[in-house]
Amino acid sequence: MIIVLKPRITKKEEAAVIREIRKLGYTPHIMRGVARTVIGAIGDERTHVSLEPLATWPQVESVTPIQKRYKLVSREAHPSDSTVSARGVAIGGRKVQIMAGPCSVENEKQLLQTAVAVKEAGATILRGGAFKPRTSPYEFQGLGEKGLKLLAKARKETGLPVITELLSENHAEMVADYADILQIGTRNAQNFQLLIAAAKTGKPVLLKRGMCMKTEEWLLAGEYILAHGNPGLLFCERGIRTFDTYTRNTLDLAMVPILKSETHLPVVVDPSQGTGKASLVTAMCKGAIAMGADALLIEVHPNPAEAWSDGAQQVTLDGFRRLMEEIQPFITAVGRE
Amino acid sequence: MIIVLKPRITKKEEAAVIREIRKLGYTPHIMRGVARTVIGAIGDERTHVSLEPLATWPQVESVTPIQKRYKLVSREAHPSDSTVSARGVAIGGRKVQIMAGPCSVENEKQLLQTAVAVKEAGATILRGGAFKPRTSPYEFQGLGEKGLKLLAKARKETGLPVITELLSENHAEMVADYADILQIGTRNAQNFQLLIAAAKTGKPVLLKRGMCMKTEEWLLAGEYILAHGNPGLLFCERGIRTFDTYTRNTLDLAMVPILKSETHLPVVVDPSQGTGKASLVTAMCKGAIAMGADALLIEVHPNPAEAWSDGAQQVTLDGFRRLMEEIQPFITAVGRE
Amino acid sequence: MIIVLKPRITKKEEAAVIREIRKLGYTPHIMRGVARTVIGAIGDERTHVSLEPLATWPQVESVTPIQKRYKLVSREAHPSDSTVSARGVAIGGRKVQIMAGPCSVENEKQLLQTAVAVKEAGATILRGGAFKPRTSPYEFQGLGEKGLKLLAKARKETGLPVITELLSENHAEMVADYADILQIGTRNAQNFQLLIAAAKTGKPVLLKRGMCMKTEEWLLAGEYILAHGNPGLLFCERGIRTFDTYTRNTLDLAMVPILKSETHLPVVVDPSQGTGKASLVTAMCKGAIAMGADALLIEVHPNPAEAWSDGAQQVTLDGFRRLMEEIQPFITAVGRE
Amino acid sequence: MIIVLKPRITKKEEAAVIREIRKLGYTPHIMRGVARTVIGAIGDERTHVSLEPLATWPQVESVTPIQKRYKLVSREAHPSDSTVSARGVAIGGRKVQIMAGPCSVENEKQLLQTAVAVKEAGATILRGGAFKPRTSPYEFQGLGEKGLKLLAKARKETGLPVITELLSENHAEMVADYADILQIGTRNAQNFQLLIAAAKTGKPVLLKRGMCMKTEEWLLAGEYILAHGNPGLLFCERGIRTFDTYTRNTLDLAMVPILKSETHLPVVVDPSQGTGKASLVTAMCKGAIAMGADALLIEVHPNPAEAWSDGAQQVTLDGFRRLMEEIQPFITAVGRE
Repeated sequence: MIIVLKPRITKKEEAAVIREIRKLGYTPHIMRGVARTVIGAIGDERTHVSLEPLATWPQVESVTPIQKRYKLVSREAHPSDSTVSARGVAIGGRKVQIMAGPCSVENEKQLLQTAVAVKEAGATILRGGAFKPRTSPYEFQGLGEKGLKLLAKARKETGLPVITELLSENHAEMVADYADILQIGTRNAQNFQLLIAAAKTGKPVLLKRGMCMKTEEWLLAGEYILAHGNPGLLFCERGIRTFDTYTRNTLDLAMVPILKSETHLPVVVDPSQGTGKASLVTAMCKGAIAMGADALLIEVHPNPAEAWSDGAQQVTLDGFRRLMEEIQPFITAVGRE
Repeated sequence: MIIVLKPRITKKEEAAVIREIRKLGYTPHIMRGVARTVIGAIGDERTHVSLEPLATWPQVESVTPIQKRYKLVSREAHPSDSTVSARGVAIGGRKVQIMAGPCSVENEKQLLQTAVAVKEAGATILRGGAFKPRTSPYEFQGLGEKGLKLLAKARKETGLPVITELLSENHAEMVADYADILQIGTRNAQNFQLLIAAAKTGKPVLLKRGMCMKTEEWLLAGEYILAHGNPGLLFCERGIRTFDTYTRNTLDLAMVPILKSETHLPVVVDPSQGTGKASLVTAMCKGAIAMGADALLIEVHPNPAEAWSDGAQQVTLDGFRRLMEEIQPFITAVGRE
Repeated sequence: MIIVLKPRITKKEEAAVIREIRKLGYTPHIMRGVARTVIGAIGDERTHVSLEPLATWPQVESVTPIQKRYKLVSREAHPSDSTVSARGVAIGGRKVQIMAGPCSVENEKQLLQTAVAVKEAGATILRGGAFKPRTSPYEFQGLGEKGLKLLAKARKETGLPVITELLSENHAEMVADYADILQIGTRNAQNFQLLIAAAKTGKPVLLKRGMCMKTEEWLLAGEYILAHGNPGLLFCERGIRTFDTYTRNTLDLAMVPILKSETHLPVVVDPSQGTGKASLVTAMCKGAIAMGADALLIEVHPNPAEAWSDGAQQVTLDGFRRLMEEIQPFITAVGRE
Repeated sequence: MIIVLKPRITKKEEAAVIREIRKLGYTPHIMRGVARTVIGAIGDERTHVSLEPLATWPQVESVTPIQKRYKLVSREAHPSDSTVSARGVAIGGRKVQIMAGPCSVENEKQLLQTAVAVKEAGATILRGGAFKPRTSPYEFQGLGEKGLKLLAKARKETGLPVITELLSENHAEMVADYADILQIGTRNAQNFQLLIAAAKTGKPVLLKRGMCMKTEEWLLAGEYILAHGNPGLLFCERGIRTFDTYTRNTLDLAMVPILKSETHLPVVVDPSQGTGKASLVTAMCKGAIAMGADALLIEVHPNPAEAWSDGAQQVTLDGFRRLMEEIQPFITAVGRE
């Protein structure tokens, strides 16, 4: 920790700060600068109490932590890339994986038709929501376990592993029974109890970025998964909330190279939530792949205008086929399959 | 819903939109303007499927909903003010209620000392966290049930009703057994399963604003509580996340008059989370009261520099006493007690 | 400056950093911590080249400046409060000053009617825009010099000093000839050439906060005024841009106590721009006064529905009279006139 | 315009709204819905007074404009792509143009060395700042006309056209005398007087996005250039300000496809300002190209650690050479040169 003292304080006020630093287990190291006195407090910030509350003292100007707060997810701790596998499909390796399917599972016909079509077009994982977090209590909340059964059926028919959202600690075991990857949505990205419950199932977890989560907070939320014994973590950028209203969210593609440098874990991009507009999805996929994303998560629906949720961001079956063709040159350009 | 068509589309393209509007149960009403054709789709937006996905159609420029999506929380549905009571303390009435206490319950001495001091200074409700949502898995996670027991003990000693945070669906009953008001934190403001679990306990619920929640989203999250049978809802503004880094959050005091106009439910302001700086708390309290807040939620600690969480935003026992004196003229000016 | 080195770098890599710090004129001071080596670079950050680019070096993890970058505006340099006077009206003293008038000057009748009415209701300064910065080139751009002449006439009739916006370096002298205070708008808050031109007129300058300006950036923009020889600076909080769409801007009232602690200069609040909604203006005024604002800037129009700009945020003449009555108790409560 | 009335208002209140709509020159068109009455006000929103102030009336719930406010920049008005040329270099055509050079022009050696190196590596336009907008008045403000002369010299030596920033209306002619493209920086993106002065020089104008500018606002700022008679406009995405502090700005790459659909004008991306970190620049370039950017604007410096401004975001000469090689496959994949 770096503690900056205010100018013109008394010796006694300075001594009190130094005493408190020692009391909390750090070794103070004093530097007298031109305009300020700065104290370096030496000690492991991850095991000691934080000194940040010292900022409330009238003689202290600021307190700044030095160490990174995440460990298990960090590339520092694990320099080589990790891959995460679901039923034999490895995410984070040479092949760019495509997760595709409807926002919500609505019925057998809708799901199977979509599953078959996305597989034919080249998707390698099937997505579909059975439990839906909805802004209003009056909106469709998902088919629940019935939806999970349909996903299992679609997996049987197509061979595609299945990813679906986990909304409730109480459903963790049930969802893990059916799904190959558990998705944690943006609204639950700091629902730490849910993260722990998901981690404990042992299934791979795809952690979406919270809509106003800073980079460090996201890495620390991921740290909860690994710290609770589950190494199978995927980070999924899905757009952040900003002032612009043209798109639903602002897809922060810089997160692809940032995560690649900060963590060893695979990086997924969701261009559907990330823009909220079907017409922008293909362009965002191209960018994400060019920048090094390991996988994409794309919403596809046979008839978006009648979708039970988020129709405006779902591409049609035809649209998805064209998208898969259009992104091919970029997968090649990036040296992947 | 208002559907705006693109200019220069064919009759056939227009007819397709009109057909779809009818198919989804709305009555179309066509207006030909100077530069655009606009269709009003008449029907109850709360019971019909949304027309918003029509925006994916190439001939459609935009789709705008007209109706408010919340009902039970709205002042439209319930023009007079509601009050919410906890052990005889009524929030939303003539008296401005002050909820005060430590961020985390740490031990009996710390809690009782604080509880007695805040009561003496005029606080009417005791706050204290037993379950703590922490950004890092390596930070103190709260005393759990032991903390709840200490809160119950402090209530017995002081007579102050107790508010504490609920973090997990699985703890809803246990926390409700000890607490008089359940607090839902900013990170769980759209954890709908937790909202439902909290609602079902029947205890009053204080719903903090999510850190990037729009006004409508917050009202709809509150709607979950009432729609699940619990009328005892408090909205608590605690700051939103913006680009500025001087304060931890930006306390959006405009929410006080906004909520007073949109909903009949009481409005609470949390200046501690709202700024993250103890030195700003008193000024924010004055503003909140002047603007009509029904209650304040203030973090108080006997020794903030050694607090186990969020020390930088907690005021001392002495500081709290002075704060209570300084806000008095504004309580009078606003015509309350 | 504090330079944090990456873990596991070589002695040679460390030496290169130390050499560069010396080369740029700072004295390095090395602290070996538990997980990182930290170098304090001692030297005046305001007169030396910044070390921040060292962050591009592969062996450097971060570089953090220590010193405050503003000087003349800082309370550190000038502990007592400053007042700024315009034609005998002192802002920053015991009296809360009220600046009121139309968004745009439209014609003589509209302006004089408003000027007389706001004076009667207790306003002490007249506002009105003659040059208008408009989002679209097709919107009304202001009456220009004709508007300035009308403002001068209204001043003559009412005795109220006049504040009006300066938009162009080329108009600085002309606007200063007519106005008593020059207003710099939010879109020009970092138009440094305009700030310099305004400073050089010698007239007091009211500097609105840029809509996404951090606290430090705002103080530094103000520093331009003082550094160019003009001590007559007023900071005016007018709301920042956030994700919420309910209000036009988010009025950041915490800026009142923050500016009061960081600078000696007066603080003004603009609740009209700050919310964009006439119905919220009175409540925001109460909050601003309770928190210590020295002046308010309020838009008033005889018939807002037909205003040539920003009608939705202007209060009527009657509304303004009521507002002035309603804020009175808070002016008393804060111990001012 | 769409005017939504509040529920349960009287006939008289409704009639007043209709009268006012007529008075302001629109034809009202009434639709009675399930929960609300909606009035379509038919008339050209670009030539009539806005009805938005009606939102202040107690019987009105909301007022929503329908028409797009920009015209000359819109693809609606000009369906085919436009190109903008500077000394024979066409931006917006088949070839992706690379603008590269130092943040600030510092001296002849630094500039010429960089100019020669970026040309050799494949850059087609030279960038360099002679007038610098700096957050603090104590920071290096640019060499001024001396810097322009050095740019002209570098152009003579290398044949590369030159882009440089215009900061002041008073410099418009002088800067236009030396430069081939005028750059308007993010802080001046809504400095409309500067936009008009730049337009009038007749030189192509590169308009950076304001750091918190909405899409529509940016297009309207561009409209100022065309409306003042200059068709040579380039839009340059350079990152927006968000809550995350890991990068200096959040580069909003979705703007590439959005601008391609909304306007006929070329789209440039600035990954240096867009991230503030040299280590992220190459990845952002790949994404921008894959998504269809017409040109890139990249900061390059022989020795970033000693740069006089923004060193942390400038790449070295070697780094730029590697960057140019690494982006090549993506230029090919997108079917360009």
